[in-house]
Amino acid sequence: MTYCVGLHLDEGLVLLSDTRTNAGVDHISTFSKMHVIAEPGERVIVMMSAGNLALTQTVVNLVSEGFDSETLGKGATLSEVPTMFKAAQLTGEVIRSVYHRDGEAMKAQSVPFDLSILLAGQIAGRRMRLFQLYSAGNFIEATADTPFLQVGEHKYGKPILDRSVTAETSLSDGVKLALISMDSTLRSNLTVGLPVDLLVYRRDSLEVGLQQRLTEENEYFRLIRENWSEALKSAYKSIPAPPWF
Amino acid sequence: MTYCVGLHLDEGLVLLSDTRTNAGVDHISTFSKMHVIAEPGERVIVMMSAGNLALTQTVVNLVSEGFDSETLGKGATLSEVPTMFKAAQLTGEVIRSVYHRDGEAMKAQSVPFDLSILLAGQIAGRRMRLFQLYSAGNFIEATADTPFLQVGEHKYGKPILDRSVTAETSLSDGVKLALISMDSTLRSNLTVGLPVDLLVYRRDSLEVGLQQRLTEENEYFRLIRENWSEALKSAYKSIPAPPWF
Repeated sequence: MTYCVGLHLDEGLVLLSDTRTNAGVDHISTFSKMHVIAEPGERVIVMMSAGNLALTQTVVNLVSEGFDSETLGKGATLSEVPTMFKAAQLTGEVIRSVYHRDGEAMKAQSVPFDLSILLAGQIAGRRMRLFQLYSAGNFIEATADTPFLQVGEHKYGKPILDRSVTAETSLSDGVKLALISMDSTLRSNLTVGLPVDLLVYRRDSLEVGLQQRLTEENEYFRLIRENWSEALKSAYKSIPAPPWF
Repeated sequence: MTYCVGLHLDEGLVLLSDTRTNAGVDHISTFSKMHVIAEPGERVIVMMSAGNLALTQTVVNLVSEGFDSETLGKGATLSEVPTMFKAAQLTGEVIRSVYHRDGEAMKAQSVPFDLSILLAGQIAGRRMRLFQLYSAGNFIEATADTPFLQVGEHKYGKPILDRSVTAETSLSDGVKLALISMDSTLRSNLTVGLPVDLLVYRRDSLEVGLQQRLTEENEYFRLIRENWSEALKSAYKSIPAPPWF
């Protein structure tokens, strides 16, 4: 399992993913699920993926090395697509081509064709965008109404985002909230695991603002993990007791 | 979908269930998922159910009207079983007999045999207990290490319970936390809906301590719903900002 979350805020993007992959609970490994294509001043594109690792790695390779696209021409890559919308289209096409190639054989082995991707970034002269792609290659975009998207094990970490994240949330608060959301997920699902990869992109900067791998030793993530339980307890204690006792 | 939660605390039981059932999003109804068998001074047994409504209603009817059990004799009911463990055994047997009767036909229609039940209560001279039954009729019990059990759409409302509920939690705090957990679920999954049924049982009292249906008009539940968002915001704001900005 996996948990990736992307916040599309007025100030920029907050992107966070865990690194655990598992084929059964007795076969657990660490793989980064965050892939960055950055050319400072020109483009920053980040892909985060959940689902079958063989599939997501194939997709990452094809969009990096070049894919013969129907709409974008031969050898199209995320390093060269002219817009974020075309980046999402390219990735969707690649997903469908992987399905054509592997889908049948996977079905024969009863392995579900399971992958989902968050694709975020900005290209010079264009808007900053955040997309979520499904295993059919179709996609949706984060908007001001719903400024965050999640893939993988998303339910445990959703309530805090639902209540606190708006487009006006600052990057600093966004990082804090994404880490709290990740911590809730880490606690409740063992197949989501440390370390986590954090990337922050400031709107119109066209360069990666912050990219950090947070391990168990990271002081700030430890502070979040230790303080959040206490903060939650104070929060529920601050609500008046029920009138029935 | 459904959300039911049971807290097994030193002081007693807190049991909470929603009332929404749906066959598709365009066919939504209100059904109580909480069934109470109470004979003051002798027994209080509460059953909360999630899953296919036809199945859970059949189970409730059979354990109330009488079931010819292999181990408990002819016409066994929850009103007469001598212990909570036997109440769980009876309910498990009933689930299996419903599977034998309906399982095949449901499979033919591609309807999953999907049900799960929380069974809680106390019988005079015996321990207070809380069980969770699966669709195979097998069951687990809440313990001091894990003093709460959930069925149905459990993930959204789990983080707050994971962090805050221990066996020592008071009934008053337990009610508050169960309602917060329910509120998180209501916000994130439309197929879990108001009103909710709340029951509180004080250990060794052998009578229902509190039984209330909370609608949107209930003042205390409204206070929880309105205050919790604010309390969560204060909670995350109380944590220091990340050091990277």
